[in-house]
Amino acid sequence: MAVYTDVAADELAEFLGDYDIGELLSYKGIAEGVENSNFLLHTSKGSFFLTLYEKRVAVGDLPFFLGLMEHLASHGIVCPQPVKTRSGGMLGTLAGRPAAIIDFLEGVWPRKPNAAHCAAVGQVLAKLHLAGRDFPMTRANALSVPGWRPLFDQAASRADTLQHGLRQLMSDELDQLENSWPTDLPVGIIHADAFPDNVLFLGDRLSGLIDFYFACRDILAYDVAICLNAWCFEPDHSFNVTKARAFLGAYGRERRLSEAEQDALPLLARGAALRILLTRLVDWFNVPPGAMVRPKDPLEYVRKLRFQQGVAGFRDYGVEIPGLPA
Amino acid sequence: MAVYTDVAADELAEFLGDYDIGELLSYKGIAEGVENSNFLLHTSKGSFFLTLYEKRVAVGDLPFFLGLMEHLASHGIVCPQPVKTRSGGMLGTLAGRPAAIIDFLEGVWPRKPNAAHCAAVGQVLAKLHLAGRDFPMTRANALSVPGWRPLFDQAASRADTLQHGLRQLMSDELDQLENSWPTDLPVGIIHADAFPDNVLFLGDRLSGLIDFYFACRDILAYDVAICLNAWCFEPDHSFNVTKARAFLGAYGRERRLSEAEQDALPLLARGAALRILLTRLVDWFNVPPGAMVRPKDPLEYVRKLRFQQGVAGFRDYGVEIPGLPA
Repeated sequence: MAVYTDVAADELAEFLGDYDIGELLSYKGIAEGVENSNFLLHTSKGSFFLTLYEKRVAVGDLPFFLGLMEHLASHGIVCPQPVKTRSGGMLGTLAGRPAAIIDFLEGVWPRKPNAAHCAAVGQVLAKLHLAGRDFPMTRANALSVPGWRPLFDQAASRADTLQHGLRQLMSDELDQLENSWPTDLPVGIIHADAFPDNVLFLGDRLSGLIDFYFACRDILAYDVAICLNAWCFEPDHSFNVTKARAFLGAYGRERRLSEAEQDALPLLARGAALRILLTRLVDWFNVPPGAMVRPKDPLEYVRKLRFQQGVAGFRDYGVEIPGLPA
Repeated sequence: MAVYTDVAADELAEFLGDYDIGELLSYKGIAEGVENSNFLLHTSKGSFFLTLYEKRVAVGDLPFFLGLMEHLASHGIVCPQPVKTRSGGMLGTLAGRPAAIIDFLEGVWPRKPNAAHCAAVGQVLAKLHLAGRDFPMTRANALSVPGWRPLFDQAASRADTLQHGLRQLMSDELDQLENSWPTDLPVGIIHADAFPDNVLFLGDRLSGLIDFYFACRDILAYDVAICLNAWCFEPDHSFNVTKARAFLGAYGRERRLSEAEQDALPLLARGAALRILLTRLVDWFNVPPGAMVRPKDPLEYVRKLRFQQGVAGFRDYGVEIPGLPA
């Protein structure tokens, strides 16, 4: 939820002069997105999305993000495409920031996802993993296991002020994950942030996968684990087996999870929970003045982590494995 | 800059069922407006504005605000109109708040107003004052002179932490204004908040006067004074006589300021400056946690107040008075 940088109308009009998207009619700062400043533009040719990349985004990564959106769209993934300037560029400068125009996709993100939403997410995530295979660029996951301990060190001393015992819980979990994180699972392009607020729907139909600014190359099943945590729990923090079955089933119909991936999923889901817990905790203790960001609740992910610690195997997610008795 | 209340898609769709505005395609929380939660909706029939009225707005005042918008639009003032439900209502309930749909007007608000903008504002303000004459509802100005001392009392003890001597400046000014505020000037419906971010333009053409949530019955020339402060100063706080001449000239061509109004304008402008200074100061010291509001700079209005204290008469604003030597 952010507009860090305001843009003057004349600056914006000048910036838009490089694009063939018509005359500017209006622009409104959008209360969405934590990393960047986002505006919804109306022009005489339609609606567009303007993003100003703030300092938390590495400028060098932008061609990867924008190129990936273009690649995925060309492979039938419903996602916004960068709009090119008359000279073919995808990235400009506005108000002193790198800036890009992308398609505005209609759709609403589901505040209360149902099983049909979960299935649609499973399907698009698998399609993304498949489509990513021939994407020529790469980007390391800055927030994979080696990135977690620095986050832990930032938040550890204050963790118990939020919940008694939280520091020890995270410390033990981090030790275990650092020692047992799998190294032999299939890797590829992952979205890494396909939370409900990044998946748009019109009814039950998925109308857009958005916000690729965490996308990177990492373990494909880790992306599945992130979504399992993000989509398959209820507001009361209970795990919803029906949603998990819908999500994993739809994923598996597009791209079958190998046995090794299935076996690793509970561990990957613990990692996915810890990673979100850590970044939320750091954000919780470091809301920048004037950032107008309402930090997300870290404790939601403590509960998810505890749940995943108790999962004995893939079958606990409610998915029947062919060949085994139900 | 605010979205205090999030709205679930299914709740919104149900709410929209009472309106004949098509199918919901998307809605985005808008980083504009300090008092309420605002969303830009796209439907199959176009763009609309959804406002959820938060607790700082008195529910009993909403029929006045919405009725005024409808009245002004019917009198040729370019402003949004409330969209009526199928049963003719203008006000519903969404997410536990009173809520209304109004027209979305294209246009951008001028970050750097020029003299043409100022003239357009002068013209529309005068037209509003004339059109308000046959509006049958009324609303007292809760933030006129009697409302200032309670604000002063809230902020006084901390005022000098912001600028040395500020408490005394405000105290003296308040004493003077309470004793000399005019009681015999023409009154009527005023906008009371026609700041640049509430006036939309397409090029130099005014495309919408918005945000009527401070509108009330008060001294008409006080509205002129508010705009003089809001539109006719430069970012470096210098008074721009060219803009003042454009603004006051355009106003006067629609509705001539009487001599009494002209004579009172410097005093009214001091009051207008003090009123904004006081509310900004209270907001500065009371940013509610999680409100995601960046408070506006009170000191801007200290400078404007000091300027207005030094104005000897109407002619200091750069306007030539017929019959007097230039």
